[in-house]
Amino acid sequence: MPMLTQRSAMPENETQADLEDRLTELSEPSYLDALLDHGLLISTGVDGLYGRSAVFEDVVERISALIGAWGVGRDVELLRFPPAMSRALLEKSGYLRDFPDLAGTVFTFCGDDSDHRRLLSCLDRAEDWSDSQRMSRIVMTPVACYPVYPVIAARGPLPEGGKTLDIFSYCFRHEPSLDPERMQLFRQREFVRLGTPEQVDLFRNEWISHAEHMMRALALPAVIAVANDPFFGRGGRFMMDSQRSQQLKFELLISVINPDKPTACGSFNNHTDRFGKIWQIRTDTGAMAHSGCCGFGLERIALSLFKLHGFDVHAWPPGPRAALWHG
Amino acid sequence: MPMLTQRSAMPENETQADLEDRLTELSEPSYLDALLDHGLLISTGVDGLYGRSAVFEDVVERISALIGAWGVGRDVELLRFPPAMSRALLEKSGYLRDFPDLAGTVFTFCGDDSDHRRLLSCLDRAEDWSDSQRMSRIVMTPVACYPVYPVIAARGPLPEGGKTLDIFSYCFRHEPSLDPERMQLFRQREFVRLGTPEQVDLFRNEWISHAEHMMRALALPAVIAVANDPFFGRGGRFMMDSQRSQQLKFELLISVINPDKPTACGSFNNHTDRFGKIWQIRTDTGAMAHSGCCGFGLERIALSLFKLHGFDVHAWPPGPRAALWHG
Repeated sequence: MPMLTQRSAMPENETQADLEDRLTELSEPSYLDALLDHGLLISTGVDGLYGRSAVFEDVVERISALIGAWGVGRDVELLRFPPAMSRALLEKSGYLRDFPDLAGTVFTFCGDDSDHRRLLSCLDRAEDWSDSQRMSRIVMTPVACYPVYPVIAARGPLPEGGKTLDIFSYCFRHEPSLDPERMQLFRQREFVRLGTPEQVDLFRNEWISHAEHMMRALALPAVIAVANDPFFGRGGRFMMDSQRSQQLKFELLISVINPDKPTACGSFNNHTDRFGKIWQIRTDTGAMAHSGCCGFGLERIALSLFKLHGFDVHAWPPGPRAALWHG
Repeated sequence: MPMLTQRSAMPENETQADLEDRLTELSEPSYLDALLDHGLLISTGVDGLYGRSAVFEDVVERISALIGAWGVGRDVELLRFPPAMSRALLEKSGYLRDFPDLAGTVFTFCGDDSDHRRLLSCLDRAEDWSDSQRMSRIVMTPVACYPVYPVIAARGPLPEGGKTLDIFSYCFRHEPSLDPERMQLFRQREFVRLGTPEQVDLFRNEWISHAEHMMRALALPAVIAVANDPFFGRGGRFMMDSQRSQQLKFELLISVINPDKPTACGSFNNHTDRFGKIWQIRTDTGAMAHSGCCGFGLERIALSLFKLHGFDVHAWPPGPRAALWHG
C-alpha cells in the first residue's frame, strides 16, 4: 500500500509550505559540512574519523586545561595512558558484556614470507586480507579511566583520604556516524575518585556543580540529567533501567549542536564497588573501595562552542574567551 | 654436543672474574626496572605498553614543544590526527608490503544477541574469542605523517613554495619488547615537507643541523648516520641496501640508553616522489611532488634524558633545564 506509506511519512496537517521548509532543511549543508569547509575538521574518508586544524586543537587543549584546573591545590595524581590498553584488562572489566559493539581490538600479522605473499596478493586483487591478522594482547581504550583501576589495585590499600586521579586519553568507540559529535576516536579528560561511598558521592556532587559553573563560564546552555549507558542487546534494557533508578549516571547535556537532541558532553558516574570488586581495591580500613569518575568529551564541548559562538574564536564572547585564553 | 655449545656460549679467554662480571650485570635491575620503580613508567602487564607519570609526561610535552619551536616564524601548517587512521590509506601506502609485522588493524564485533552470548561464553571459559571480531575500516597509525599525504593531495597542486606541516601523533608498532625504548605505543613529532626535490633536500639538511643543535642544548651525545628501515622478510634485504646506498634515511643516534647499541631517536627521510606518485600530489608547475619528513620519537628522547641526567629533573644540568623549561 504505497499510498498509505507515503501519507504516513508526511505528518498530518502538513501544508505545502511546511513540506518545502522540510526539503530546504534536508538540502542545507550539515554542521559537519560546515566544519569540513572551514577546515576545522579534516575528512579521512572514514565516518567519525577526522583530522583537526590548529584552531580546533587549540580549543580542545584549552578545554582540557580548564577541566584540569579543578585539580590545582587538590591532592590529585596525574597519570597518562596510551590510546590502547591491555586486552586482559578489557576482558576482566565487563566492557565486552555491556558494550561489545563499541569495543575495538588490535590485530596483527604474525606470519612468514609465504603468508606475506598471500597478504600482498589479496591486496593486489582488492580481496579481504583479514585472515592474515591475529588478535594481539592490545585493544583500543574505550574509556579513559579503564587503565587506572588495576594500577591503583597493584599499589595495595588506598591511603586514608582515598585517592583522586587526573586522566586524559584518546578513546575509541565503534559507531561510524555522520554526526560530527559522534566520533570513533575522541578525547576524554576525566577525574577518578576511589575511596568510601561517602568520598565518591561528595566528589561527584562537587563535580556536578563545578561542571555547571564551567558551562556558564563558556556561555554554553547546559543541564544535568539522570542518564544510562547504551547497554547492548535485549538484556541491555534491564541494565539501563537499573542504572537510572539507582541514579548511578548523570550527564551534562548541551542542546547546541542539535537543538532538539541534547548532546552528552560530560558524565558523572558512581560505579559503587563494581571496579573495587573486579580489581580488589580496598580502602585503608580494608573495606571494598567504591569509585566514581567525572569525565568530559573534549571534542563535543569544542563542537558546541564552535556551533554556538561561531568559527572565528577571536569573535567569541568575552566570557568563553576569558575562561579559555586568559584563565 | 652440549659441551661444545656450552663452550661456544662463553667467549674465548673469559676468566672466572669476567664471568662473574657478566653474571652481576645480568642480575642487576634493568633500566626498565628502574623506570617502573621510580614510577616514571607504569606497568600495564603488556611488554612495550606503559602508563606515564606526570613528570614523564611533562618532559615529553616539553621535548615536543622544543621540536615544534622550529616552526615558529616559518610558513608551517599544524595538523593533528587521531592515533588510528583509515585502513584504505594503509593499504595504498605500501606499509603492508614493507612492514606487515609492525602494523596493527582494528577489529570490532558486528554480531547479534546470540553472537554476543557465544563471545561471553568464550570469555567465561578463557577461550579464544577472536572469531567474534571483524576487520573494521580503521587501523593503528604506524607513522605520524601517513594521514597527511591524501589530505594534501585532495587540496590540488601545492602552493609555489611547496608545503610544510607540523604533525604529532601516538603511533603503534607491533614489537613487544622489554627494552623501554621499544614501545608498542609511543609519540612522534614530525615536520613534513612537500615540494620540489631541491626544497625537500634543503629542508632535510636544515633539520639535520637543527637536530644536532637541539641535542647539544639537551646535553645528549648524538650522531647522525645513514640508516635503513627494518623491511620485512627475505626481500627486505635488498630494500635496506638500496635505501642506504641512496642515502634516503638518516637517523639521530643517541648512545645513552644502551652504551653499546645506539638508539634511533629521530629520522630524516627523503621519500623522493614515492608518496607524490601514490597520492598524485603535484607541485605548482605540475611536476610530481617529492616529500620528506623529519620526525622524533618523544619517549626515546625522554628516556635518554632520564638515563643520562637522572630521575630528578630539578637536578638536571642547566643546559637541558633551560632548553625545556625556560625555552
